[in-house]
Amino acid sequence: MKNTFGESVSVTIFGESHGTMIGAVLDGLAPGITVDEDFIAAQMDLRRSAGAISTARREADKVRIVSGVFNGKTTGTPITFIIENEDTRSKDYGELAYKARPGHADYTAQMKYHGFQDFRGGGHFSGRITAGIVAAGAVAISALEKKGIRIGTHILTCGGVSDRSFNDPAEDIMKLSGLEFAVLDDSVKEPMVAAILAAKEEGDSVGGRLETAVVGCPAGLGEPWFDTLEGVLSHGLFSIPAIKGVEFGEGFGFADERGSSANDQFRSNNGTVYTSTNNNGGVLGGITNGMPIIFRCAVKPTPSIYKEQNTIDMNDMTNTTLQIKGRHDPAIIHRARVVVDSMTALVLCDQLALRYGTDWLYSE
Amino acid sequence: MKNTFGESVSVTIFGESHGTMIGAVLDGLAPGITVDEDFIAAQMDLRRSAGAISTARREADKVRIVSGVFNGKTTGTPITFIIENEDTRSKDYGELAYKARPGHADYTAQMKYHGFQDFRGGGHFSGRITAGIVAAGAVAISALEKKGIRIGTHILTCGGVSDRSFNDPAEDIMKLSGLEFAVLDDSVKEPMVAAILAAKEEGDSVGGRLETAVVGCPAGLGEPWFDTLEGVLSHGLFSIPAIKGVEFGEGFGFADERGSSANDQFRSNNGTVYTSTNNNGGVLGGITNGMPIIFRCAVKPTPSIYKEQNTIDMNDMTNTTLQIKGRHDPAIIHRARVVVDSMTALVLCDQLALRYGTDWLYSE
Amino acid sequence: MKNTFGESVSVTIFGESHGTMIGAVLDGLAPGITVDEDFIAAQMDLRRSAGAISTARREADKVRIVSGVFNGKTTGTPITFIIENEDTRSKDYGELAYKARPGHADYTAQMKYHGFQDFRGGGHFSGRITAGIVAAGAVAISALEKKGIRIGTHILTCGGVSDRSFNDPAEDIMKLSGLEFAVLDDSVKEPMVAAILAAKEEGDSVGGRLETAVVGCPAGLGEPWFDTLEGVLSHGLFSIPAIKGVEFGEGFGFADERGSSANDQFRSNNGTVYTSTNNNGGVLGGITNGMPIIFRCAVKPTPSIYKEQNTIDMNDMTNTTLQIKGRHDPAIIHRARVVVDSMTALVLCDQLALRYGTDWLYSE
Amino acid sequence: MKNTFGESVSVTIFGESHGTMIGAVLDGLAPGITVDEDFIAAQMDLRRSAGAISTARREADKVRIVSGVFNGKTTGTPITFIIENEDTRSKDYGELAYKARPGHADYTAQMKYHGFQDFRGGGHFSGRITAGIVAAGAVAISALEKKGIRIGTHILTCGGVSDRSFNDPAEDIMKLSGLEFAVLDDSVKEPMVAAILAAKEEGDSVGGRLETAVVGCPAGLGEPWFDTLEGVLSHGLFSIPAIKGVEFGEGFGFADERGSSANDQFRSNNGTVYTSTNNNGGVLGGITNGMPIIFRCAVKPTPSIYKEQNTIDMNDMTNTTLQIKGRHDPAIIHRARVVVDSMTALVLCDQLALRYGTDWLYSE
Repeated sequence: MKNTFGESVSVTIFGESHGTMIGAVLDGLAPGITVDEDFIAAQMDLRRSAGAISTARREADKVRIVSGVFNGKTTGTPITFIIENEDTRSKDYGELAYKARPGHADYTAQMKYHGFQDFRGGGHFSGRITAGIVAAGAVAISALEKKGIRIGTHILTCGGVSDRSFNDPAEDIMKLSGLEFAVLDDSVKEPMVAAILAAKEEGDSVGGRLETAVVGCPAGLGEPWFDTLEGVLSHGLFSIPAIKGVEFGEGFGFADERGSSANDQFRSNNGTVYTSTNNNGGVLGGITNGMPIIFRCAVKPTPSIYKEQNTIDMNDMTNTTLQIKGRHDPAIIHRARVVVDSMTALVLCDQLALRYGTDWLYSE
Repeated sequence: MKNTFGESVSVTIFGESHGTMIGAVLDGLAPGITVDEDFIAAQMDLRRSAGAISTARREADKVRIVSGVFNGKTTGTPITFIIENEDTRSKDYGELAYKARPGHADYTAQMKYHGFQDFRGGGHFSGRITAGIVAAGAVAISALEKKGIRIGTHILTCGGVSDRSFNDPAEDIMKLSGLEFAVLDDSVKEPMVAAILAAKEEGDSVGGRLETAVVGCPAGLGEPWFDTLEGVLSHGLFSIPAIKGVEFGEGFGFADERGSSANDQFRSNNGTVYTSTNNNGGVLGGITNGMPIIFRCAVKPTPSIYKEQNTIDMNDMTNTTLQIKGRHDPAIIHRARVVVDSMTALVLCDQLALRYGTDWLYSE
Repeated sequence: MKNTFGESVSVTIFGESHGTMIGAVLDGLAPGITVDEDFIAAQMDLRRSAGAISTARREADKVRIVSGVFNGKTTGTPITFIIENEDTRSKDYGELAYKARPGHADYTAQMKYHGFQDFRGGGHFSGRITAGIVAAGAVAISALEKKGIRIGTHILTCGGVSDRSFNDPAEDIMKLSGLEFAVLDDSVKEPMVAAILAAKEEGDSVGGRLETAVVGCPAGLGEPWFDTLEGVLSHGLFSIPAIKGVEFGEGFGFADERGSSANDQFRSNNGTVYTSTNNNGGVLGGITNGMPIIFRCAVKPTPSIYKEQNTIDMNDMTNTTLQIKGRHDPAIIHRARVVVDSMTALVLCDQLALRYGTDWLYSE
Repeated sequence: MKNTFGESVSVTIFGESHGTMIGAVLDGLAPGITVDEDFIAAQMDLRRSAGAISTARREADKVRIVSGVFNGKTTGTPITFIIENEDTRSKDYGELAYKARPGHADYTAQMKYHGFQDFRGGGHFSGRITAGIVAAGAVAISALEKKGIRIGTHILTCGGVSDRSFNDPAEDIMKLSGLEFAVLDDSVKEPMVAAILAAKEEGDSVGGRLETAVVGCPAGLGEPWFDTLEGVLSHGLFSIPAIKGVEFGEGFGFADERGSSANDQFRSNNGTVYTSTNNNGGVLGGITNGMPIIFRCAVKPTPSIYKEQNTIDMNDMTNTTLQIKGRHDPAIIHRARVVVDSMTALVLCDQLALRYGTDWLYSE
C-alpha cells in the first residue's frame, strides 16, 4: 500500500501543497474517545509555527473533521480531517516547474510519475502534507494520554548547539508539552535560534537531531521479527520529510561500547521489574520492556536555500543553475518534532489495538 | 502480520534455536530464476562463520529447498528453505529457563508469551533464525545480480577501529563479495579482530557499525509517504537482532551540516543524470534517484557475556544474579553483515516487483 | 485494515449518511490517466438513480476531486473524491435512534461500537457510502477501457422476472453502458419495474440477482491460493450492502453437473487459445484464462419497509415494534449494479498493477 | 501477498503435489493453546479420505510440527506443519507435461509462470496443498472450541441427492464431528454414494453444495466495509480448489423474496437478543449478530475424468485431445468439507484476535 499505514489503526493521507485541500483518514480507532478540537488546533499551530525562523505561509490550517466523530466522540468508523489550502495564489511557477531543486523530491517524482506529478510547491511531497498526520496524531495522542501513555520530543541538537538528554522522561515530557521551540534546557533555546537565524542570513539552513521519549507504554508490544517495535516505528518516522536516521536507546553509540556496559541489567522492586540503565531504549528483541521508549531522529537541513545551486532542466535533462526565491524555512526541526510525536502516537495506537484489541483504548 | 514481511515478494520465517528445524518461505519471486545452491551454501557459511571470534556451534547449516524450485529454476510459487537443527543436545537449561539474560529478549518474551515461549537458546528470538533470511536472501541476491543490481556491506567500525567508507561502490562491492570478515581496507582487519579477541578474553563483547551500498538500482523505487524506501528498508533491517540504528547517506551527520553543503546538486552527463555528491544516500523524498543507495546500521555488542550480571528470576520476579556459561560470540557484526545484505535484497526484490510487475526479475 | 482495500491500487472510504461529507481516496493508480469528470457524474447519476422505484433523496451527489489530479490527468498520488451531504435536515430521529431496524446493521453496529456509532440514516453503514466507491470506480473503469478491458452488469432476475444471460459479452456490455435500468432483453424491463412497484404499493421491497461480465482481461491474473481472482473479487463485492452471495461461471449450478459437462475444453485458433464453453467464468485455479470473467451476485430485498416489524429497544434490550417511515427504496438492485461495476474495476486495476507494475495502466 | 492469508493470525502455505514436502506456517495464534496431535491426525485422515469414492493415493499424511509448539502448547510464535510427500514415484508424466487438462489450472499456470511451474500432479495447484490448511485449521478448531465456538459442514447436495439443512446448528455440528461422509440425514448417504459411484463407472465425476454452520461466535466481528465477515470468509473459501460460489444465509434465495419475509426480526429473551429467523446467516452489515453463521459453498465436479476431452498442446498451442489415466476422484466434496471447516476456523481466529487482541484465544 502507498499512502496508508498501519494494520488495525491506520492512517491514509492525501493532498498537494497547492491543491484544493489536504487531509487524512484515521481508521480503526476505538469508539468513545473524546475528540478535543482545541488540542488538535494547538498541535496544528505548533506544526505550522511562525515567526522569523519559520515559513511565512499565513494559513490558519483550520482542521475540519467531516466524518467519524459524533457528539464529540469517535464513532469507531473512519475519522476524516480536511484542511483547505487557502494560500494558493495562482502564479507562474517559472523555472520551478522544470528545474529539480537539489535535496528535494522533484527529480525522483519525475522518475516515478513521468511528469504528471503536481510540481507546485512540491505537490504531494510537500512538508505541508504532514498537517494531516498531525491532525490524526492529535486524536491518537489524546487517546493514549487517557491510558497513561505520554510522548514528548525535544530538539537534542541544532546548528551546533546541544540540549540535555532526558533525565526523568515523565517529567520532561510534561515540560515539553505545548512548547513552540521544544528544548529541555531553557538556556539552549537562544543560541539555537541564533544559529538558525545566522544560517538564514546567509541564505542557508540547518539540520539537527530530535530525541523522543514515551512513558507508560506496557511491556509486550511489538513482534520478534519484522514487526519489531523499532521496525514499525522507524517505518513511520522515515516518511517524515528530512528524517534520514533513526536510532533507539544508545543507537549508534552502541558501536563503541562493550556488552558489559551496554546490557541493561534487570532489577525488581517488589515485583515491579525495571532495568537499572535503559541503553536499549525500552525495546528488547523488538518488544517493549516497560521502560521509557527512547529514540532519536536525524533531521537534514531544509533543502530550500537562497544560494544558487547546480541542477538540471528536466525537460531535456541538461545542466543549468537554480536560485530558489520566495519563502524558506532556515530550520524545520522545531516543527518536525510535532510530526514525530504524531507519528509515534499513531504507531502506538496501532500496536496497542493489535495486542489488546480494538476496544482497549476506549475501555475504562 | 508477524513473521511475514513484504507485499509482492514476501518472506515468512519460522523456527526456534533448539527446535526441530528452522526455515523460511520466500513467496512471489518471479519464475525462471536460476537457483544457485552453491551460492546459498556459501552465504550460509559466511553467516555461520567460525573460528575464534564466533560461536562454536558446529552445524553445517545445510539448506534443503523443499518447494518452489523445479529443474533448478524458481517456479513462481513459494520457495521453502529448511535447515535442520542438528546440534540440539538435550540438556538441563538450568537457570537460563527462568533467569532473564540482560540485553536479550527473555524478559520481553515472557511479557508477550506468558511463559509459553521456547526459552532454549533464545527460542524464536535467536540469531539463528536469521539463517532462513540468509537462505532466502541468497536467491534474491542472485536474481538482482542478473539485473545488474549489487549489494555489499562492510564493517565500518568495530571495537574502536574504523574501516574506510565506500569510494567506488561498484568496485568496493566486488571486493567485499565472499569475504569472511568484510572490510574495505585490508589493514584494519587485524586490529579489529584483535579488539574482538581482547573483549573475549575479558568475558566481554563488542559492537560496531555496518555500512551498505547498493548499485544499479533504478530511479523511481519507493513511495513519497509511509512506504518510502528508507522506511521499508529500515523496517526490515531493525528485525535483525542487535541492530539499534539505521541511517541513510549522511544520516545523523546531517545534524551538523547546512543546506548548502548537504544538498546533492544535480548534474547531467549527456542526459544521464547524477548528483555530484551523494549525501542523501541515493534516496530523495523516499524514492531512489539512481545513485548508489548508502546506509549504515548500528550493531550493539552481543548481549551474551561471561561476566556476572544482575537480573531477575522470572518465576517470582525477584532479584538475583546470572553468569552465562557456554558458547559466546564476542562479536556478531561480521556475521550480521550477511543478514543485512540478505534483508536488503529481499526488500529490493519486493520494491522492484511492486514497481515493474512480478515478471520483471525474470524478464530478459 | 478496515476501510481500505487493495494492495497496489487501494481505495479508502469514509463518511456517514448524515455527516458533513462522504468520500473516497483512490491510491496507487498510474499517473497520466485522463480523468473524465462527465463520466464520473454520469456514474453517480446512475447510482443515485431516481424516479418511482428509487429514493426521493434529491441530492445531486456532485463529486469534487480535491487531490491527485493535475491538468486533467492522474498524478500517481492519492486521488480524493469528496461529496457533500446537502440533504441532512436536522430532525428528530425519534425511535430510529434506539430501535434496531430488522435486516439493517443497527444492532451489529451497537455491538461493535457500543452506542457511539452515528445512527442517523444508518451512519457509516448507509448505502450512500457506496457513492465514494462509484466515484473512484469511474476513474478505474475509464483507465481499464483505455486498455481494452470492459465491464458490464445487468439485472438477471428481480421480482420473479428474469433477463436473458450474456450471449456475446463484449457486445452486451456495450448495450448496458449508461442504462438506468440495466437489462439485456428490453422486454423484461417493464414487468420487472411493475413487480417492484407492486411491492412498493404493499409497503414492501424486492431482491434479485446481478450478472457481470468482464471482457479483454489478460490471462494470468490472480494467485493459486488465497488471492485467487475469485477470492479477491468476492472480498470486495461482499462489502456492497445487501449482497449475500457471489458465484463464478456456473457457480451453484455446478452442483448438479458432471465433470464431463462442466469442464471447459480448450481450443486453439491459430495459437489463440479459448475454451469452447465458459462454465468456469474465465477463472481456472484462481487465475484468469483470458475468457470473459462471468459472475453473479445475490442482492437481498431492501430491508427498509413500511410494514410494522418486531424489534428491540437497544437502550434496555427489550421487545418492541417498529414501523419505518420516510423514504424507502422498494428495490436497490438497479443501483447496486453500478457499485458492482465500480468495485470490479477497482479490484482489476489492483490486480493488473500487481502483475504488470504500477505504470501498466498508463503505458501506451 | 500471495500464499499468506490473515492479518493478526495468518497462514502461509507451500509445496507441490510431487515435491519433497508440503506444509503450512500458522502465525499469530495465542500462546498457551494445547495442541492435540491426535485431532490433527484425525482431520488429516478425513481430508485424505479413502475407499471407492476417493483417490487411491496411499500416503499417511503424517504431520510433523517443527516449530511453535513447546511442551504440547503453542508458544505464540510461528507453528510450522510439514507433510512429506512419500508417494512421488519418479515416472514419465508423458502428455500431462504439456497438455492442459480441462477444468484444471494447467493452462493458467502456464500463462502466469511461463512454463517454469512444476506441472507434476498439478504442482502447487494440487488439492493436496490443502493438507497444510487442514493441519493448521485443526489447531484453530481446537482453540475455538475451548472458547465455545464450533464449526460444522455437511454435504447439502451431491449427485442430485439432497440432505436436510441445519435444524439445531449446535446439535447438528456435534453430529457431524468425525463423520467421514458428512450428512445430517443418515438416509441420504447411501443414495449420494451411489450417485458418485455411478458417475465413476462412466469415467465421470460429480459436484455438489456444502453447508456450514458456526455457533458460539460473539456479535461484533467483521467490518462494515471491505473486511466484512462475508468478504473475508469468502476470500479464504474461494481459495479451496473447486469452490465456485459462496452464499450467506438465504444467499441467492433472497432473489425471490420480499423484504417483509427476508428481514430477520429482533427479539429479546430477558436481555438476550436473537432474531426469530436467521435468513441473514448471522451477519448483518458485514458484522456478526450472535446468531449461527450459516453459509454454503458450490463445489464443481472434479475436473479429472477418464473421458477423452479436447484440449491444446501447450508447447505450440495447437489442438489435440487428452484422456487422463491414473487415479481419479469421482467426488471431492466429502473431503472439501474438512478444508471448509479448517479455513473457517483460521478466518475466525484472525477476526477474534483483531477484535479482542492476540491473547483472547488463550485467556481463561
